[in-house]
Amino acid sequence: MPVETIKYSNNKVSLIDQRYLPGKLKYISISDEKEMFDAIKKMKIRGAPAIGVAGAFGMYLGIKKIKAKNFGMFYRKLKQIEKYIASSRPTARNLFWALERIRKIALRNKTKPICSLKELVLEESLNILKEDNIICKKIGQHGNRLIRNNDRILTHCNAGGLATARFGTALSPIFTAKKMAKNIHVYVDETRPVLQGARLTAWELLKEGIKNTLICDNMSGMLMSKGMIDKIIVGADRIALNGDVANKIGTYNLAIIARFHGIPFYVAAPLSTFDFSIKTGKGIVIEERNPDEVRRISGTYIAPKKVKVYNPSFDVTPNRLVTAIITEKGILRPPFNKTVPSLRDLRSSAKLALSAGR
Amino acid sequence: MPVETIKYSNNKVSLIDQRYLPGKLKYISISDEKEMFDAIKKMKIRGAPAIGVAGAFGMYLGIKKIKAKNFGMFYRKLKQIEKYIASSRPTARNLFWALERIRKIALRNKTKPICSLKELVLEESLNILKEDNIICKKIGQHGNRLIRNNDRILTHCNAGGLATARFGTALSPIFTAKKMAKNIHVYVDETRPVLQGARLTAWELLKEGIKNTLICDNMSGMLMSKGMIDKIIVGADRIALNGDVANKIGTYNLAIIARFHGIPFYVAAPLSTFDFSIKTGKGIVIEERNPDEVRRISGTYIAPKKVKVYNPSFDVTPNRLVTAIITEKGILRPPFNKTVPSLRDLRSSAKLALSAGR
Repeated sequence: MPVETIKYSNNKVSLIDQRYLPGKLKYISISDEKEMFDAIKKMKIRGAPAIGVAGAFGMYLGIKKIKAKNFGMFYRKLKQIEKYIASSRPTARNLFWALERIRKIALRNKTKPICSLKELVLEESLNILKEDNIICKKIGQHGNRLIRNNDRILTHCNAGGLATARFGTALSPIFTAKKMAKNIHVYVDETRPVLQGARLTAWELLKEGIKNTLICDNMSGMLMSKGMIDKIIVGADRIALNGDVANKIGTYNLAIIARFHGIPFYVAAPLSTFDFSIKTGKGIVIEERNPDEVRRISGTYIAPKKVKVYNPSFDVTPNRLVTAIITEKGILRPPFNKTVPSLRDLRSSAKLALSAGR
Repeated sequence: MPVETIKYSNNKVSLIDQRYLPGKLKYISISDEKEMFDAIKKMKIRGAPAIGVAGAFGMYLGIKKIKAKNFGMFYRKLKQIEKYIASSRPTARNLFWALERIRKIALRNKTKPICSLKELVLEESLNILKEDNIICKKIGQHGNRLIRNNDRILTHCNAGGLATARFGTALSPIFTAKKMAKNIHVYVDETRPVLQGARLTAWELLKEGIKNTLICDNMSGMLMSKGMIDKIIVGADRIALNGDVANKIGTYNLAIIARFHGIPFYVAAPLSTFDFSIKTGKGIVIEERNPDEVRRISGTYIAPKKVKVYNPSFDVTPNRLVTAIITEKGILRPPFNKTVPSLRDLRSSAKLALSAGR
């Protein structure tokens, strides 16, 4: 059973500082919105659904301290906190989605006393966390239908339990297939520069007893040409209305190489990752991170210290390279510019998932 | 001017231990065939043409010590040394080519006294080194014709001066273009797992004052989709009779991604890299190296210590993905299964290059 990436108990938010993995499983306590901003920005917690949950709890920790005489004052301060947390990372849709949900809860209950609003925000944060577990399990059930016995599956980055509250997106179908006693082997792209594949995905798979092999990101073509890969499953940080997928840098390379070899390329993501407000992937803001993520590994320079670096954290895979998108509502197929918009109505009923799961 | 990767002076062979770069430019002295085997195997020296030159000097250092009463005895021991050095690394054609050249020099002069044979072997080793410089410069002149002003060129691994005796293969056209005052910008794939791009190519380009930007291997697709790359030039470790190219792992990924974007993909290699004895890339032995090259970076584990790893050191790019092959004799174009075999006759006149250069 995957570990809890983020949890709330005894009135405290704590999360795994993933920078210490695979060496050390260390939970840290988060006591206010500044510490949550820092945790997201520095990638102590990462993965689109996980930072959605983290963002919601960050909001709660922030608004908990607000001293306001009326809703207007409370709401102004809440919006400041929302803007602040939203500025931690720009690409993953789930963060903005979660922050918006928290804000709307406050807005819908504006007539209630401030202390009740604070409780409602906590409740909504807990709902987002619980829903994430249910949603990820559903993604696992749907995605499992795509996995055959003896499949060799390649994944990129970490879209496992650690990228969500607990059960993962791209790895969830793999966890489910394992439970169903299917024989599977997972190839793990190490995923430079931050090495989420080597550090996190390999660790999760070993922990769950799932056979796996670590490779460098530049080896995928060779494996595919040798017939060593049956399918690819990756997560997503944001999906546009036409099905273009922003995900960890290297996903686009992988999708092109998969297409060249005629290998199915699946994306697994909850509805909260879809951004119906942008028509295509061109509208997605791509975060550029510190050049030292590339120049240094584990604190040691592996390149000349002054070398210029380009370090985009994500790339956009055009919809035509995607075979299917696995969501909690089922499996979307092309044409995505038709099937993705059809999800819009479903999203308003996202809470059904929670009640269904209770 | 690039540094000398390997040199012979005052009766001593010395070479740069490239494992210390970019931190430290350190020459080490090589005194016998065992030390040369170790230098090649541990990648103190690497790059197909460079290990060709190194192999030749390794032969000389080995045969220098032979005590033999007649040619038969001398030749038997020479062949043992050849076999031993040949077993250091299996993929680069240039190593076997150079060893064969040394053996043939001995065989052609079998009637001469053993002490003369030893001198001839030294002379042939020095010829191989000098020819490498001339050949690399010619590759630079031919390749320069493919480079336009303001070109942005992506390269993988290190096929620079450090991969040869001094002047490089894939980087030689870039050095020449720079000399001709063309404005160029080189994007450097870091090249996991051994990071030759980050450690060596970036260092060489900075040293030569050529504008460059370091990227991770998985970023190339994004750059190409944004129109940031005009062409790709890489080196080669072995080229089959049909033009299939074995080169550093990740080259095949890059070639597929270049083709997807309609970007020219050039390979630069001397004739000594061609293996006319194998029909296609399928015949090329691919070296698999220590899993710890992937699990550890600079001595630190970046993955679970016990994770299974697949670590092929090279891949094969099929001829149909190659736009042209830049050699010292000119630029080869498709159909490579016609143009590569036409090189066979030229190779016997390889020494012309040396006399022409004197």
